[in-house]
Amino acid sequence: MTELSITTLHTSDADFERRFMDLITWNAGDMADIERRVAQIIADVRQHGDRAVIDYTQRFDRITLTPEGMAFSEAELEDALATVPHDVYQALELAAQRIYQFHSWQLPQMGIQEFMDASGTLLGQRVQAVKKAGLYVPGGLASYPSSVLMNAIPAKVAGVETLIMVVPTPDNQVNPAILAAARLAGVDKIFRIGGAQAVAAMAYGTQQVPAVDMIVGPGNIYVATAKRQVYGQVGIDMIAGPSEILVIADNQNDPKWIAADLLSQAEHDRDAQSILVTDDATFAEQVRLAIAEQLSHLSRSQIARQSIMERGGIIVVKDLDEGAKIASRVAPEHLELAVADPRTLMHKIDHAGAIFMGRHTPEPIGDYVAGPNHVLPTNGTARFSSPLGVHNFIKRSSLIGCTARSFASIGPAASALAGSEGLTAHKLSVDLRLAKE
Amino acid sequence: MTELSITTLHTSDADFERRFMDLITWNAGDMADIERRVAQIIADVRQHGDRAVIDYTQRFDRITLTPEGMAFSEAELEDALATVPHDVYQALELAAQRIYQFHSWQLPQMGIQEFMDASGTLLGQRVQAVKKAGLYVPGGLASYPSSVLMNAIPAKVAGVETLIMVVPTPDNQVNPAILAAARLAGVDKIFRIGGAQAVAAMAYGTQQVPAVDMIVGPGNIYVATAKRQVYGQVGIDMIAGPSEILVIADNQNDPKWIAADLLSQAEHDRDAQSILVTDDATFAEQVRLAIAEQLSHLSRSQIARQSIMERGGIIVVKDLDEGAKIASRVAPEHLELAVADPRTLMHKIDHAGAIFMGRHTPEPIGDYVAGPNHVLPTNGTARFSSPLGVHNFIKRSSLIGCTARSFASIGPAASALAGSEGLTAHKLSVDLRLAKE
Repeated sequence: MTELSITTLHTSDADFERRFMDLITWNAGDMADIERRVAQIIADVRQHGDRAVIDYTQRFDRITLTPEGMAFSEAELEDALATVPHDVYQALELAAQRIYQFHSWQLPQMGIQEFMDASGTLLGQRVQAVKKAGLYVPGGLASYPSSVLMNAIPAKVAGVETLIMVVPTPDNQVNPAILAAARLAGVDKIFRIGGAQAVAAMAYGTQQVPAVDMIVGPGNIYVATAKRQVYGQVGIDMIAGPSEILVIADNQNDPKWIAADLLSQAEHDRDAQSILVTDDATFAEQVRLAIAEQLSHLSRSQIARQSIMERGGIIVVKDLDEGAKIASRVAPEHLELAVADPRTLMHKIDHAGAIFMGRHTPEPIGDYVAGPNHVLPTNGTARFSSPLGVHNFIKRSSLIGCTARSFASIGPAASALAGSEGLTAHKLSVDLRLAKE
Repeated sequence: MTELSITTLHTSDADFERRFMDLITWNAGDMADIERRVAQIIADVRQHGDRAVIDYTQRFDRITLTPEGMAFSEAELEDALATVPHDVYQALELAAQRIYQFHSWQLPQMGIQEFMDASGTLLGQRVQAVKKAGLYVPGGLASYPSSVLMNAIPAKVAGVETLIMVVPTPDNQVNPAILAAARLAGVDKIFRIGGAQAVAAMAYGTQQVPAVDMIVGPGNIYVATAKRQVYGQVGIDMIAGPSEILVIADNQNDPKWIAADLLSQAEHDRDAQSILVTDDATFAEQVRLAIAEQLSHLSRSQIARQSIMERGGIIVVKDLDEGAKIASRVAPEHLELAVADPRTLMHKIDHAGAIFMGRHTPEPIGDYVAGPNHVLPTNGTARFSSPLGVHNFIKRSSLIGCTARSFASIGPAASALAGSEGLTAHKLSVDLRLAKE
């Protein structure tokens, strides 16, 4: 085993500020070439529809689809489902039920809400689900049934009428647990396509793939770039960066537990970031040794090692309050508070995607079965954005209804402002109605 | 007066579908050059801070700022406020009060919300305002005090701690009503800078301009492009396209009223779109004649004429139900229902930013004093997005707290799923804690 080095900073170091900023700054690199290639794929799909999707699928996934064969048939789904191990299916059922419960609890008041104000004007809003949504699910290594549940269930809870899914099946391989999760979550139709071509098909529609209003779900850089490019034509959830965890831990934790928690982010992606913040340098060293030991047993040990050595970090703080300040500056996707009094510490945290409270709440419990969403704002965006939820599938329309009388009461101010802004048609529209009163 | 031609379609026409799609499709054109120039400005501001902002302000706005002079002083604000006409100030006060009232009504439950589920796991969410927000306000022709109120008040109602504003002052000119509106809305500090350089300064911070978490407000194509480019570093409201109105009107309306309503969008911008949907071709012709008559009296008559002739439209439908279907396909920013029973018709509309109910509710009342926001989703995005509101300034964090006991109950399913996904560190993190029980 090679020596495992992890960037280690002490807040008392003279160069802490600069090294801290280096640690937490993520640069995605130059994307111009990918942008161009994705733009070309989208243009092709807009122009040629299914034909283009089928051609790209042949090229990238090495399978030949007919238009009718783009979607899984009922029989194919039944066959696949029969191969899912019983314990996995049961775990998916529990997860689906808990995710459904949490997101139902989260659902805001829907429908028409209104009030009449003092002028007699009716004001309000109509809150509705988007009608059609599309879910992207990666194929290959990152093809996770848990992710299907986390993206699909909030859409269904919000009331999305039509929920379709795309998943690439390179060389005709697909994880049957993905299909089982889609079935459990209530997905209406599943297409075996992926990449930018699948995003384009859902955004603009083809003969076989219906155009949707909203696209969600993770994907590689081509998928993320395609989502960004079709944003505006459709809504999207977010552009996710590499996954991150920040653990604030005192020295009363088992170092092995904390090591495993940090590695659970690191094994996702060599660009993932795992940061330990602790008030005890000796404990920090124990965690480092535990990471080194555990690394050798992991199935994705090489990815995890690279992530830990290149992007991981240990920050030794003078006390937990300083730890909370550091965590707030990072605004991490996942934040574990492995301390005696997590609630008091939580109140000192400004920003985090999800907060895992106490020593018995490791981050992976949130990935699978806790109930809240595992799609979370990355790369500091928790400062202004939120976990995926029912809100992403809901839109509001404002409602305004004046009577002749209420218009007479508030119209003159509108006329004055329109006049002052030099918008004479606005003013005319108001004045014509005021003259009539 | 030249003859006023307006694209007129009948849903019964054989080529209706193609011409309708031509009418409602908006193409912003090639942006590659603007993208490059904006990227350069942002890079300069990130590297050189105030120095770069001051240089660009000199070049674009022809004024020489000192770092200390970048923000308006209290004395300058007082002087400017004294020049605002009394009736305009009073109208702004009424508008501010009504906008405040509506957005307070709209505020969802804030703070920590949680419940304990059957397993004994604590689940919940923390709902908070973003800490710092920045408001962009255009200078020159499109410098509207109403827009300051509409963008700033929802931020303050949500609880944003620090709200700054930027407004360019080309040749040292500024509309004092803008400053009055900012004062009424509770803006904390106002900088006399604009363009992509101001957006970059708010996104990344300079010596004088604080970095914010969220940037909102309208702007020209450079501002919109800069907002898109800094998205991710900060949150943004939306990328607005040209303004649009769709009016569904029966023949019981005064054609002059409807003509003025259509022109009130057209006068914003030659790319703005005004569409009349009516079940009476004779009434449509009366509206066309009224538009032609009114056009000659408008202060922005040339812009309005160009908008009406190039992007305006009249669609004659067989009945109002068909009109509702057409409106839903457009998903307009502003939708007027100038009919006898607007409520019944409203229920048949799938998508619209704001719905103006009945003959006495012209769109301009919503621009100024009704209370709901006038920043609305354009270009069909009402299918999946919402008016600006307190929600834009609010973020959620998920909360998860297991006890040793509740973890023992739901942990095994997480372990099974982690195992099936091949994520052995995830599994280890769960299994180590289960072994301890």
